[in-house]
Amino acid sequence: MLYVIGLGLGDEKDITLRGLEAIKKCSKVYMEAYTSLLSFGITSDGLSTLEMFYGKPIIVADREMVEEKADNMLFEAQVSDVAFLVVGDPFGATTHSDLVVRAKKLGVDVKVVHNASVMNAIGVCGLQLYRYGETVSIPFFTDTWRPDSFYEKIKRNRTLGLHTLCLLDHFGLDIRVKEPTLESLCRGKKVYEPPRFMTINTAIEQLLEVEQNHMESVYNEDTTCVGMARIGCEDQVIVAGPMKQLLTIDFGPPLHCLVIVGDTHPVEEEMLEFYTGSK
Amino acid sequence: MLYVIGLGLGDEKDITLRGLEAIKKCSKVYMEAYTSLLSFGITSDGLSTLEMFYGKPIIVADREMVEEKADNMLFEAQVSDVAFLVVGDPFGATTHSDLVVRAKKLGVDVKVVHNASVMNAIGVCGLQLYRYGETVSIPFFTDTWRPDSFYEKIKRNRTLGLHTLCLLDHFGLDIRVKEPTLESLCRGKKVYEPPRFMTINTAIEQLLEVEQNHMESVYNEDTTCVGMARIGCEDQVIVAGPMKQLLTIDFGPPLHCLVIVGDTHPVEEEMLEFYTGSK
Repeated sequence: MLYVIGLGLGDEKDITLRGLEAIKKCSKVYMEAYTSLLSFGITSDGLSTLEMFYGKPIIVADREMVEEKADNMLFEAQVSDVAFLVVGDPFGATTHSDLVVRAKKLGVDVKVVHNASVMNAIGVCGLQLYRYGETVSIPFFTDTWRPDSFYEKIKRNRTLGLHTLCLLDHFGLDIRVKEPTLESLCRGKKVYEPPRFMTINTAIEQLLEVEQNHMESVYNEDTTCVGMARIGCEDQVIVAGPMKQLLTIDFGPPLHCLVIVGDTHPVEEEMLEFYTGSK
Repeated sequence: MLYVIGLGLGDEKDITLRGLEAIKKCSKVYMEAYTSLLSFGITSDGLSTLEMFYGKPIIVADREMVEEKADNMLFEAQVSDVAFLVVGDPFGATTHSDLVVRAKKLGVDVKVVHNASVMNAIGVCGLQLYRYGETVSIPFFTDTWRPDSFYEKIKRNRTLGLHTLCLLDHFGLDIRVKEPTLESLCRGKKVYEPPRFMTINTAIEQLLEVEQNHMESVYNEDTTCVGMARIGCEDQVIVAGPMKQLLTIDFGPPLHCLVIVGDTHPVEEEMLEFYTGSK
């Protein structure tokens, strides 16, 4: 059996009892990414907080492993219980459908243990989930690569008065591999880019740049948005206000996301008031 | 402190450790609805499974209480720790923003403990959450009341190739009060309608009726949908297929929901294949 277990958004205590019970009985425990493991902290013994908490070692299954070497994990799951841990929900913003498809093709039974993910926890800001349109992703602009297909999607959502969740680009040690240099090829090892995550500020700068290029008045610096950092964590920060105001705020460590607010109902407005920058 | 705690979608083991710890230290524990409490089961002693599990009594806060008598609960929360339990996530399909707004106005600190809700757990069928458009609600049609504003929303989503989550009408003993009869007024008590929930079959019948009335070819009986019953529970049922096929399937007890499938990517298609009626 392969248990695909969502860990939720905060710390080690955001796992469900069902998820913890599954981990306890599994012979091996994998986790989706090295940076995810680190985000839960390291104890003074050098062990990860999660390993201490579960009383078991965790095998890091970085992006390469998931894509190329997952079969070993799945072969193990054919003969014993194996857990694969995922931050948030297994089918949240980052989906693990490909792993589930591969498991099912190998005849491995899969059980999913759900949890909160950014896709539903954003409800905490008071904007109702059923009034969101299509979700967009904002990628890091480079000098030569400035894709803006999100603009058209935001336009459609705003025409309909719907809210737009903007997921902001981020990648850890495990996700993006630099273009191999001659040196790294000679040494036969991959060189990873340092982890990066997009702040709400950068996202707004890019959004305003794209609006300036297209000039279709989809939004502007006075458009109300909600910036949310470390949602679901003890130190989450939620601020509602016009883009130009959110630009000036330091939201702190990752992860960040941004909602562009559509038409609002009275209860939504009352909730947003609690998060306006003035308070 | 008022803790608003999501219980997730399955049984008592779907609460998070964080949620359970909060309940343990609260002086009083409220729950949003009588039918929600019952859905977790009753022990042979006549206690609810949840009360046994927590070792505490649970005070049922039915819809009336939440709207009219919540202030008592909030006054308690001003001087001690109080838990308010919600099936799914506190800000999922049914939002509890109004309670949070009232709490904040009274100066009561609020902590939200997130969990899975139908709004993100539907990801398990393999359709990616960021490719959903606006969510629609399908209300029970009566002889005289057949509202179909969902049709226009589904049309927009389908024009854009997006998936549509249809939330299906349901109400328990606690939610809908019958129009008072002369008799009930004389006796001074309210008469409740029996609990009802809409099946996937009824939803599809209503959808096809509305299509016949509007004739805008938004969907038809060959349109691929995914019917999902008791999502996140041990006995969940997920079947993908054309509307006419899903019409013939008995999905069993509540709750049901339905997704009208938009344009699909290859990985989405592979996942849906596992759920096609033929398998």
